Amino acid sequence: MSRPAGELLPHHESGDRAALLPHHDGSALHVETAEPALGDVVTLRLRVPHGSPVDGVALRTVDDGEPHEQEATLDRVDSSDSWWRATLRLHHPVQHYRWSIRSGPHLRWVTGRGVVDHDPTDVDDFRISTHGGAPDWARRGVVYQVFPDRFAPGSDGRPRVDLLPEWAEPADWEDPISDVHERAVRQVFGGSFWGLRDRLDHIADLGATVVWTTPFFPARSSHRYDAAAFDRVDPLLGGDEAFAALVAAAHERGLRVIGDLTTNHCGVGHEWFRTARADATSPEAGFFTFHEHPDEYESWLGVRSLPKLDHTDAELRRRLTEGPESVVARWLAPGALDGWRIDVANMTGRLGPLDMNHEVARTVRRTVDATRPDAYLIAEHAHDFTGDVDGGGWHGSMNYAGFTRPVWSWLRDPEADTSFLGTSTTLPRRTGDAVVRSMRAFHAPVPWSVATAHQNQLCSHDTPRWRTVAGSDDATIVGLGLLVSLVGVPCVFAGDEIGVEGGDSDQARVPFPWHRPERWNRRLYDAHRRLLRLRRDTAALADGGLRWVYVGDDALCFLRETPDDRLIVLAARAAHEPIALDATALAARSLEGLVGDDLTPDGELVRLPGDGPAFHLWRLHR
Amino acid sequence: MSRPAGELLPHHESGDRAALLPHHDGSALHVETAEPALGDVVTLRLRVPHGSPVDGVALRTVDDGEPHEQEATLDRVDSSDSWWRATLRLHHPVQHYRWSIRSGPHLRWVTGRGVVDHDPTDVDDFRISTHGGAPDWARRGVVYQVFPDRFAPGSDGRPRVDLLPEWAEPADWEDPISDVHERAVRQVFGGSFWGLRDRLDHIADLGATVVWTTPFFPARSSHRYDAAAFDRVDPLLGGDEAFAALVAAAHERGLRVIGDLTTNHCGVGHEWFRTARADATSPEAGFFTFHEHPDEYESWLGVRSLPKLDHTDAELRRRLTEGPESVVARWLAPGALDGWRIDVANMTGRLGPLDMNHEVARTVRRTVDATRPDAYLIAEHAHDFTGDVDGGGWHGSMNYAGFTRPVWSWLRDPEADTSFLGTSTTLPRRTGDAVVRSMRAFHAPVPWSVATAHQNQLCSHDTPRWRTVAGSDDATIVGLGLLVSLVGVPCVFAGDEIGVEGGDSDQARVPFPWHRPERWNRRLYDAHRRLLRLRRDTAALADGGLRWVYVGDDALCFLRETPDDRLIVLAARAAHEPIALDATALAARSLEGLVGDDLTPDGELVRLPGDGPAFHLWRLHR
Repeated sequence: MSRPAGELLPHHESGDRAALLPHHDGSALHVETAEPALGDVVTLRLRVPHGSPVDGVALRTVDDGEPHEQEATLDRVDSSDSWWRATLRLHHPVQHYRWSIRSGPHLRWVTGRGVVDHDPTDVDDFRISTHGGAPDWARRGVVYQVFPDRFAPGSDGRPRVDLLPEWAEPADWEDPISDVHERAVRQVFGGSFWGLRDRLDHIADLGATVVWTTPFFPARSSHRYDAAAFDRVDPLLGGDEAFAALVAAAHERGLRVIGDLTTNHCGVGHEWFRTARADATSPEAGFFTFHEHPDEYESWLGVRSLPKLDHTDAELRRRLTEGPESVVARWLAPGALDGWRIDVANMTGRLGPLDMNHEVARTVRRTVDATRPDAYLIAEHAHDFTGDVDGGGWHGSMNYAGFTRPVWSWLRDPEADTSFLGTSTTLPRRTGDAVVRSMRAFHAPVPWSVATAHQNQLCSHDTPRWRTVAGSDDATIVGLGLLVSLVGVPCVFAGDEIGVEGGDSDQARVPFPWHRPERWNRRLYDAHRRLLRLRRDTAALADGGLRWVYVGDDALCFLRETPDDRLIVLAARAAHEPIALDATALAARSLEGLVGDDLTPDGELVRLPGDGPAFHLWRLHR
Repeated sequence: MSRPAGELLPHHESGDRAALLPHHDGSALHVETAEPALGDVVTLRLRVPHGSPVDGVALRTVDDGEPHEQEATLDRVDSSDSWWRATLRLHHPVQHYRWSIRSGPHLRWVTGRGVVDHDPTDVDDFRISTHGGAPDWARRGVVYQVFPDRFAPGSDGRPRVDLLPEWAEPADWEDPISDVHERAVRQVFGGSFWGLRDRLDHIADLGATVVWTTPFFPARSSHRYDAAAFDRVDPLLGGDEAFAALVAAAHERGLRVIGDLTTNHCGVGHEWFRTARADATSPEAGFFTFHEHPDEYESWLGVRSLPKLDHTDAELRRRLTEGPESVVARWLAPGALDGWRIDVANMTGRLGPLDMNHEVARTVRRTVDATRPDAYLIAEHAHDFTGDVDGGGWHGSMNYAGFTRPVWSWLRDPEADTSFLGTSTTLPRRTGDAVVRSMRAFHAPVPWSVATAHQNQLCSHDTPRWRTVAGSDDATIVGLGLLVSLVGVPCVFAGDEIGVEGGDSDQARVPFPWHRPERWNRRLYDAHRRLLRLRRDTAALADGGLRWVYVGDDALCFLRETPDDRLIVLAARAAHEPIALDATALAARSLEGLVGDDLTPDGELVRLPGDGPAFHLWRLHR
């Protein structure tokens, strides 16, 4: 026998009603200053629901390695909560803190992991970063990911055969993707930036506000993560001219465009690497780690076509990441990109005992800030990003670990054999409480300003399609609901909105069937258009605090709250016992159905529906 | 309503039997190489008890920010467990890893926190450090802490009035300690190193193997943490001559001696600080942080008598921490100290945005390794040390957070109002599972080589006396049992062994009542002598793996296991329902009582006694 133990999660027994737990997070209801500076004094608030025992509250922080506690003051009492107030001086660029609640001989901590009844380490602390955050257009945005070879063909609908390099295999738009990986990445379907430009209305109409295009540099594959140059757009995509036209057309519509840059490695075809191999005394030879020149060199996961870049080299940094002449800076010029997604950010600058990953991130950030202070800088990190995002480097990370994987492990088709990025084995199917604990584990160590800048995605060019993983339209929509309502910037991969399927990353990169409307899943399209627009137009879904209300095996319920707006979300993967919430604790006289029907409290109780799979979202009115 | 959730803890329902969980730790049964080097390949083992579901096992590690999983091999099956084997290449100086266990659609992780059913961050991973560990004499030692002014008087039994500096208030050995802190720290009772030398037989007889003396440098207080010099022993203690005699006598008996050095600050009386204030252009002026010379300077927690040292200054490092001429090195010469306890190690090198704490630790370690490779280097850290001990700096930390505080919060007198170091409020009284989760939270992020080098203590010169906190002899002995049987080097504060009391750190520093045998608590003395000797003579208590067998509100049961020896410990703070263990799962035909009576399985069950408060320790025989 064993029993789980650790952080407290709100749930309720059959017939009981769910009671809320004490709560704090980094949102405006709880932290007065959104982007504080080092040395500032910030006012913080903790809410303790009536009925939750409290004799006193203290705020604990750590300065120079030494903790300090100060008593909090009871600030105000409203119909549902007592609000406790304390101030925090930001002595460190990233300041840690947590709350304690005393009641008799008991002491509970309120940490980034939620409420715990043991003594945690400081890794679970809340954090305030003084490094500034992502621009509002990003945090409140909706990202639409485009894999340019597969999104929209140029005017002639065929790859420009005259431009095709030797490695490429031309394919017709409706050809199948090869099931041999080495061939699939050589198939060129002929999407271009002209084609993308012509489809911007589709993207904007869907509710997206940002286009993220995977790499556009010349390369030796259709994914182009093996850059052969960093100074021009691949002619196959229409070259610099099509890129300029795309950006201009996007900006005209108020859409932003972010690019995709690999700082960890380049392709063997890159001029830097060719020079480095040809001449061991060249400056470029220092950009790489040659174990034996010219044939033995460090590469990405041992893949010889992807030689790893060495950021200890000052000339490499000058050309790639540092200062106004760098690749990072030049593409952020006016009329060009609005931000970067940094590929393999988890590995860049790391090689055994040498770890300058955080220096690389800070260097890129300094260059971005000096060039385009309103640019968005997001890291690829498919695993544990928490140690790499304190706000001083990347604005946020792709949130595979804290969003995608937990959502998959809750909603995935139970009959399917689903694997996940970087894991060799079948993804488990987990209950709601395990899923919420996973989410919290990755959420807790990250400042709020970073968590709200993370990019959440249900799938990407590196995974199977979400529709395939979910196995049904119903489950697909529940996942989409979580995508738009949890903390982080939602990102859909082009084709998700029409139910494109694909069982692995190669098959996921299917050309968009523009001319096959009969293949469009209209139910999913309508759901995407409705939910992505709801997210775009509802600030509380971007900025609102996140408070768990109920966590069951099959149903998850949470609040997103700002000082001006309060939303409640119910996601269910299956039919479940109806959830009864205390209307007074919730401070709700009525629930306006933004997704689903309106609800009115039944006496003292708000009874949430028990149907499933289902996604509901209500606005609370006092 | 809320339910705790997180790591799994073994327990059992009434009438049920406790089942063991899958297990791994850094001890020899599970990790083949005790002190591996970078690049080594290490064989690791996971044990899965029969009855615990398992379809397959994988080992996950992270290289350069990217995780990898490899299938483990079923190595062997014995009567109780299946043992799974995998190898790990040490690509990083501190290599992370954890295990996954698949069973149907389920996946459990075995991490440093134990078995969890959600996806954790890498902070919970096991870690192997390639930095080398503390010397065996330390890890297998028993430390006896001496506060020299209060331990044993010099031959005339009085402070040497002729040597008394102006700040001192001479006191007779039996005078009370002032209840005014400012006076208490000026009271000089006249203990000396001559007196300590004469009492070494008492220390050795008790079972201790190491004497830790708090600072002996000249200062302006009886605690001497405000050093006025680092180059000589305070004449009040007998000076350099008494020190040499003490060390020689200790070494003759096989006892080691460790000193106490503050690298964070010195006293205002220190010649460095006096020179710095007198001459802003002096080299010493760079040792400190003057906001305005000479009167405004950085100090420890704002206490002006303790100016903070600035480790960015190369000359300070040369004099204090770095190289053969440094203070750190000079006192480790032959015939001098066998190690250092570094005071305020948690704060040293830290000041707001400047954090060179780890550089200070590494510098001190390099100096120690170059001077006396078998010296012991232990950090004072009363809070979360986990981020500061990867094995490359301090060998270990004082384990207030992972031992003292959890034990206090379980065993403390429920009627008393007990506060803890660095906290303003009453220490909670917690149940066994919260206590074990606290211990694990601080244990998990630390390499095994560090955890076994930590110094555990039930109290120190900075806390109330353990006997006072515990409130009874029974509870005192249960705590002592945990001190000798949990992972980490036990340390007793002189006087603990005879039941000295004291409600705060001043009162705890009571002169040892050598000449008042009627005040000695003989029951506690016998318990200390028995248990400290048991620890000294039982390698499994130092090196054995730690495996929790049962965690209840009032009783904790765990194994300490090496390839050659297996011990089982039962600590109870109160009478509790007897615990039934499966004799086959435990692989025990008989239990030899090393503390308490022998036990024989009752058929298939081992029934452990339900008395309490009680401490039992058995050796398991197959």
